[in-house]
Amino acid sequence: MERIAYYNGKIDTPENLTVPFLDRVCFFGDGVYDATASSNGVIYLLDEHVDRLYNSAGLIGIKIPYTKDELKAILNDVVSRVDNKHNIVYFQVTRGTAPRNHAFPGDDVPANLWIMVNPKQFRDFSVPMKLTSMEDKRFLYCNVKTLNLLPSVLAAQKAEVDGCDETVFHRGNIVTECAHSNVSILKDGIIYTHPNDEYILPGIAKNHFFIACNKLGIPVSQTAFTLDDLRNADEVFVTSSSNFCSFADTFEGKPVGCKTPETVKAIQDAVIQEYLNYCGIDSL
Amino acid sequence: MERIAYYNGKIDTPENLTVPFLDRVCFFGDGVYDATASSNGVIYLLDEHVDRLYNSAGLIGIKIPYTKDELKAILNDVVSRVDNKHNIVYFQVTRGTAPRNHAFPGDDVPANLWIMVNPKQFRDFSVPMKLTSMEDKRFLYCNVKTLNLLPSVLAAQKAEVDGCDETVFHRGNIVTECAHSNVSILKDGIIYTHPNDEYILPGIAKNHFFIACNKLGIPVSQTAFTLDDLRNADEVFVTSSSNFCSFADTFEGKPVGCKTPETVKAIQDAVIQEYLNYCGIDSL
Repeated sequence: MERIAYYNGKIDTPENLTVPFLDRVCFFGDGVYDATASSNGVIYLLDEHVDRLYNSAGLIGIKIPYTKDELKAILNDVVSRVDNKHNIVYFQVTRGTAPRNHAFPGDDVPANLWIMVNPKQFRDFSVPMKLTSMEDKRFLYCNVKTLNLLPSVLAAQKAEVDGCDETVFHRGNIVTECAHSNVSILKDGIIYTHPNDEYILPGIAKNHFFIACNKLGIPVSQTAFTLDDLRNADEVFVTSSSNFCSFADTFEGKPVGCKTPETVKAIQDAVIQEYLNYCGIDSL
Repeated sequence: MERIAYYNGKIDTPENLTVPFLDRVCFFGDGVYDATASSNGVIYLLDEHVDRLYNSAGLIGIKIPYTKDELKAILNDVVSRVDNKHNIVYFQVTRGTAPRNHAFPGDDVPANLWIMVNPKQFRDFSVPMKLTSMEDKRFLYCNVKTLNLLPSVLAAQKAEVDGCDETVFHRGNIVTECAHSNVSILKDGIIYTHPNDEYILPGIAKNHFFIACNKLGIPVSQTAFTLDDLRNADEVFVTSSSNFCSFADTFEGKPVGCKTPETVKAIQDAVIQEYLNYCGIDSL
């Protein structure tokens, strides 16, 4: 198969599979998710993504009806059924199926497991991203990877309308993250990034980007930065589990970053090499 | 039938109906809803609820693929298929079915219409509500009746755990609304309520509660009030389209309101009488 959708053990194409009308995701967006790339049948950083899913679920009181090992086995099994070399493995857990009522259903209502695997074409990381911006009006559960993603939908749509690749969220002057990525800047040899708190997702790709920076002797300061800091940065980095580590050359229609191309290439090479090694492949 | 679920023209019981895995509600909570009571086959304030649905949809860029008259005809048809005297009519529109991608799908992807009708038992409005509280960490799209309801789910669960009927949201000291109701207070003969802005839903039941107050000579001030104002209020009113107009006698485990029982009864009688007249029935 080329594309797979999975719901509580049922497998079909994403177009053909159906789910219950009363799954709580349908009325409340009541669930959490995670996603990562896979190549050569190997799901990248699976332990970290599964840990984050359980953490997200725990923060909003969803009990996942599998052990982590059981979930990993299910994910590996589903991925083994697709033929593509590169995939995006998406998985989510929703708070069960029950008549619509805001409060949690009883403990006898198990959470539902959803998985989707789609072929992945990696972007050309040497091509810079164009960024636009939007006031960050999201809730203060941004550290939880929930399915309440309407503000990110609106921000992604703004990027599309503005002819950009991503939208930078800011609360007033403070940059938080992007519609579906983290954003960090390099200034005078130091990486700055918003600290991990309720305003941003604790990015796994961001963390591996920092590991690469540290190996290259570039220190990372978990200090929030402003829109003007971004405009005046030496480099602007956009990181996510599906796009690893990209850099930007445009913000709100004006040039940004691109002062240290060798540094960008060294970081990107290190990030991508870690992926290749992990998955046991030679190239994307 | 006693309970009906409807999805783009398909009708079944809520337990049996299924929906596409790729409906955008499943990944983003990408939709808006509305709901109202019906008795005797008459959907209460249908025009206002349909207007609000279209307004909510417009605020987040969802195009509803029906005229308002067409939607009302569909809702009336679905309600006519149930036998119960009293129902809750729930309807929502989601941003189409398409491969998961944050930005909007193309204009060729129509929005999906969901309807659910369930029997309604009205609460005894002479019984006061017990209220608990929770910091309001929701996004700043609370004026839009979206399906991103996770904070309301968590707040409703807190009410359940605390043995209460509703949870009052507050941003710091300022009271906004409840998990799924508006809240207003009476103090020295004046009703105070949070103004309609991005922090609260513009409640239709709240508005008809105000109309009843005005008819009784009680002025309404759209002025935000604090937690202490609520604690010291003469009365605390909780309004919603499914519960009309209730009052509270307990907040955070301590007595509250209940200083003017005749006023409460007069307002409730007026609110309920409007419903009875509208639906052409003699009693709930």
